[in-house]
Amino acid sequence: MVKPLYTVSEQLMAVTNGKDYADTVITNGTIVNVMTGELNEGLDVAIKDERIVFIGQAKKMIGEKTTVIDATGRYVAPGLMDGHMHVESTMFSVSTFSQAAVKKGTTAIFMDPHEMANVFGIEGVRLMHEEGRQAPIHVFTTFPSCVPATDDLEDAGAEISVDDVKEGLTWDGVVGLGEVMNYPGVIQRNEKMVGEINATLAQNLTPTGHFPEGTKEELTSYLLSGVNSCHETVTKEQAIEKLRLGMYVMIREGSAWQDVKEVIKVITENRVQTDYIMLVTDDIYPETLVQKGQINHVVRRAIEEGVDPVIAIKLATLNTARYFNLDRDYGSIAPGKVADIILLDHLETVEPTDVFVKGTHVVKNKAFIQEVKPYLYPEKYYQSVKVKRPLVADDFNLVTDLMGPVNVNIIEVIENSARTKKQTVSLKVSDGALQVDMKNDVIKLACIDRHHQTGQISNQFVTGFELKRGAVASTVAHDSHNLLVMGVSETDMAVAANYLIKIGGGMVCVLDGEVIAEVPLPIAGLMSDLDESTLLQKVEQLKQGWVRLGCQMHAPFMTFSLIALPVIPDIRISNRGLVDVTTFNLIDTIC
Amino acid sequence: MVKPLYTVSEQLMAVTNGKDYADTVITNGTIVNVMTGELNEGLDVAIKDERIVFIGQAKKMIGEKTTVIDATGRYVAPGLMDGHMHVESTMFSVSTFSQAAVKKGTTAIFMDPHEMANVFGIEGVRLMHEEGRQAPIHVFTTFPSCVPATDDLEDAGAEISVDDVKEGLTWDGVVGLGEVMNYPGVIQRNEKMVGEINATLAQNLTPTGHFPEGTKEELTSYLLSGVNSCHETVTKEQAIEKLRLGMYVMIREGSAWQDVKEVIKVITENRVQTDYIMLVTDDIYPETLVQKGQINHVVRRAIEEGVDPVIAIKLATLNTARYFNLDRDYGSIAPGKVADIILLDHLETVEPTDVFVKGTHVVKNKAFIQEVKPYLYPEKYYQSVKVKRPLVADDFNLVTDLMGPVNVNIIEVIENSARTKKQTVSLKVSDGALQVDMKNDVIKLACIDRHHQTGQISNQFVTGFELKRGAVASTVAHDSHNLLVMGVSETDMAVAANYLIKIGGGMVCVLDGEVIAEVPLPIAGLMSDLDESTLLQKVEQLKQGWVRLGCQMHAPFMTFSLIALPVIPDIRISNRGLVDVTTFNLIDTIC
Repeated sequence: MVKPLYTVSEQLMAVTNGKDYADTVITNGTIVNVMTGELNEGLDVAIKDERIVFIGQAKKMIGEKTTVIDATGRYVAPGLMDGHMHVESTMFSVSTFSQAAVKKGTTAIFMDPHEMANVFGIEGVRLMHEEGRQAPIHVFTTFPSCVPATDDLEDAGAEISVDDVKEGLTWDGVVGLGEVMNYPGVIQRNEKMVGEINATLAQNLTPTGHFPEGTKEELTSYLLSGVNSCHETVTKEQAIEKLRLGMYVMIREGSAWQDVKEVIKVITENRVQTDYIMLVTDDIYPETLVQKGQINHVVRRAIEEGVDPVIAIKLATLNTARYFNLDRDYGSIAPGKVADIILLDHLETVEPTDVFVKGTHVVKNKAFIQEVKPYLYPEKYYQSVKVKRPLVADDFNLVTDLMGPVNVNIIEVIENSARTKKQTVSLKVSDGALQVDMKNDVIKLACIDRHHQTGQISNQFVTGFELKRGAVASTVAHDSHNLLVMGVSETDMAVAANYLIKIGGGMVCVLDGEVIAEVPLPIAGLMSDLDESTLLQKVEQLKQGWVRLGCQMHAPFMTFSLIALPVIPDIRISNRGLVDVTTFNLIDTIC
Repeated sequence: MVKPLYTVSEQLMAVTNGKDYADTVITNGTIVNVMTGELNEGLDVAIKDERIVFIGQAKKMIGEKTTVIDATGRYVAPGLMDGHMHVESTMFSVSTFSQAAVKKGTTAIFMDPHEMANVFGIEGVRLMHEEGRQAPIHVFTTFPSCVPATDDLEDAGAEISVDDVKEGLTWDGVVGLGEVMNYPGVIQRNEKMVGEINATLAQNLTPTGHFPEGTKEELTSYLLSGVNSCHETVTKEQAIEKLRLGMYVMIREGSAWQDVKEVIKVITENRVQTDYIMLVTDDIYPETLVQKGQINHVVRRAIEEGVDPVIAIKLATLNTARYFNLDRDYGSIAPGKVADIILLDHLETVEPTDVFVKGTHVVKNKAFIQEVKPYLYPEKYYQSVKVKRPLVADDFNLVTDLMGPVNVNIIEVIENSARTKKQTVSLKVSDGALQVDMKNDVIKLACIDRHHQTGQISNQFVTGFELKRGAVASTVAHDSHNLLVMGVSETDMAVAANYLIKIGGGMVCVLDGEVIAEVPLPIAGLMSDLDESTLLQKVEQLKQGWVRLGCQMHAPFMTFSLIALPVIPDIRISNRGLVDVTTFNLIDTIC
């Protein structure tokens, strides 16, 4: 954390009082002023230690040792802040993610280490938070709230208790409670949910929310708990309803779902006040991060949809800082604020050439120039895929006494959306097992306990991926991160599952008994210890692997990894069976 | 204070979950939505206990015991919040002020009991704060910071130390540090100023500011201390400079000075984002309060100058609540917020017919309908005018050995402005004393120690009031509240001073040896214990008294009471002499 302003005021004032020189002066730039919404030209920004000390004509603050950076013709904007995201989705470790993200202008994130919490509980959260403390950007943590995400519908590797939350909230840099996904639990006054929210509010910290849909009465009940934000808003109408009720709306643009186009209309069409609106990424995968960007991409998308560029930047700086009550230190270019600054050649593209974090020049001409020491996780984090025994092809048959055809509840996935739909289809039975229906794109899907060595397998069916051959598997399977396998061939499904067990987790494509692509994610089965470019190659191979298996969907492995997430409607798989998320019940596969 | 939301969530949710009825439902009104900037028609607002529980169609929340108020054709707006004000200026006690103010739609004030602090120190602050705790509105306190206002330029009745501030900041309802007027002290790292500001920031409370003018370097140094607001902005240019530097601008419309017309141009002309802008009254006198209004008058003035009515209301509700980090509870009509609500027939006039505070209907058809028990101050608060001996006419002669004419530094007051100007004039000497110059409106002005019985009298000259005869006196004499006397006749000056000594303080007009008007302010020589209408009659008589003495100025007794305020440029009187506020030095009267 930075030193509080008031403990360093005297040293900073020495520069404005003419008794000392600035460390760095960025001269003659155009300031992106998120307080006023203006662009202010021809101004110098003087930096001392970790903070901005002056904005104006700062020639006299330049001494012999002062670094001078000419920003003539360039924009000087506050470092971008991502108000809600999961580092695990990027597949990078926190350190490697931070290096990749800061090149895109991200200087602060509010991470919810929810995936890690599902595998290793509070200890995993603490390690990721610790890794964040030594990262080259500001890593704030919102403590995971819903682990497991639901009661009695799935089994994660660990649970987070109210006492865990209370402990986590005392750690320096934990600024709130992570997305409270169990909104039915909140409305029904579930003891754990209420305990966590109340602990957060009692500390005057921020309980962040997740409310995909419900009646106005339900949304209101949720707000009455004290949770006051949501990043699950997908229509303009939902956004306006939430804003009118005083809920902060985090507009999301991730890899697998892209809400900006629709939701940003509250600004471009309804022309509402923007105080309660933020931009977030939630979940992005490595390719998006490296190629399109991180939160800067979301800002760019807002601009493309017609938002004034200064306001678009405000949505990912000042508004975020204010939401988390951190605006005295972060979110703007102003005297006394932490010197998190990005330089842009063009405003609309939001591609920084240079980035300063806490006054340090960390990105120069788009290159990361700081040294970062790697963070080492304990050995057991590399041994997190724990199953009862190796899988065999027959494990993936859903057996039945019925003769068929049989009516079956299946999951329909939707490209670029976190939502799913329930379908009922008729499947043939052969050799006592339900069969895939390739003509109608109905294929096999299994979720295997990988935490407790129970040998539990849930066999279901899915449509929408249009996989034509082979199998895929993943230990990234929100939120419990059990071992997820999907395929046309039961033999390939077994090969895929067994391979991930062997390498400690990741993602894999298998065809005709051979691994044709893999992304090793040995840290908790969620994150890579590879560097940026190596991991990116692996991910590119994985994408090609999916294509070779016949899938044409955009970002299929993200959609795949969300298919076990029992908090977003309508229907999901878990290690226990098939979950109806409109009623929060396990339902039968066979009707 | 209200009960924290999370401690009452369950009871509130009972209404939205259909298990209980609302206490009150305001039906079919048009909501003034300060989050979105919209007007939303045809909505019901349901209230349970102290808070709003639902906004929408609330018919099913109406039970047998529910009070239903039809708001068809009316506006339902959040209760107005005055972000900076001194109750003492209204001459009312906190209780009586609150009753008058709530009829105008004020449901929360942030008072700085700075005047009381100058007379009775921390104990006086504690009593006013206590009185506020039982008032019918939310009285938040910002703890007085600059008592005395300056070092070595004047003598107040008490001092506020860093330890006093630290103690006060622990009281429930103290939300920050009162206007830090000693801005040179802040810039020069005065130990007391730094200690107070740091104590406030260490508690995560809000240090409010006061920066009338200075260089950009000085303003920046002031901001680097952590103080982050100002209500002393009188031009659009000053406002835009402050906003650009991340300073919150409180636009003031008081009785004696009216900044809205000029400063609001940052919104109507520059079209800046309004997040960092608030409306405040600072100092209003009783007539303004009762006839024009309190913070609702400032909102109305903003609307008259062209600000959208919803935004104008936002400037005195949500923005104020957010500045003080109280927006989770206050400042908007939304589920979970404290039910501070005003009903308006017309938006532009901002004249509420009905007011709810914490869900209680306290103003009905413009009448205050709640019972308020009076707050009794200890006896010594009625004996605060302590002088060495009764005054005589000769006490008001500025004696000199010079033969004259003599060049003299005098104070020029400006109508409707807190500023003064230094003039140098030539005055005749007669009988060894400087004489008034009636032709050029140069009359006598004296400031007498009323706290320490030293017998100290500072005799000066003033122009601008155009007093033609008699004398006036006041124990309201910002900030030290010594005994201020002004006049043409030394005999009348002595009568005026002695009368205030006798009645324990107040304001008085004297002509030909007779008291022709008086406002008794026996509580600390600052506040009345009279009811609203009686005090108002007295004030009206005082106004007439000033007119009878020849003064045509608007609100002359406010301007008069500020003539001893040594923190606003350019020149002031104190009990010690003549103060040059551009250099913060005592200067000679005779050049």
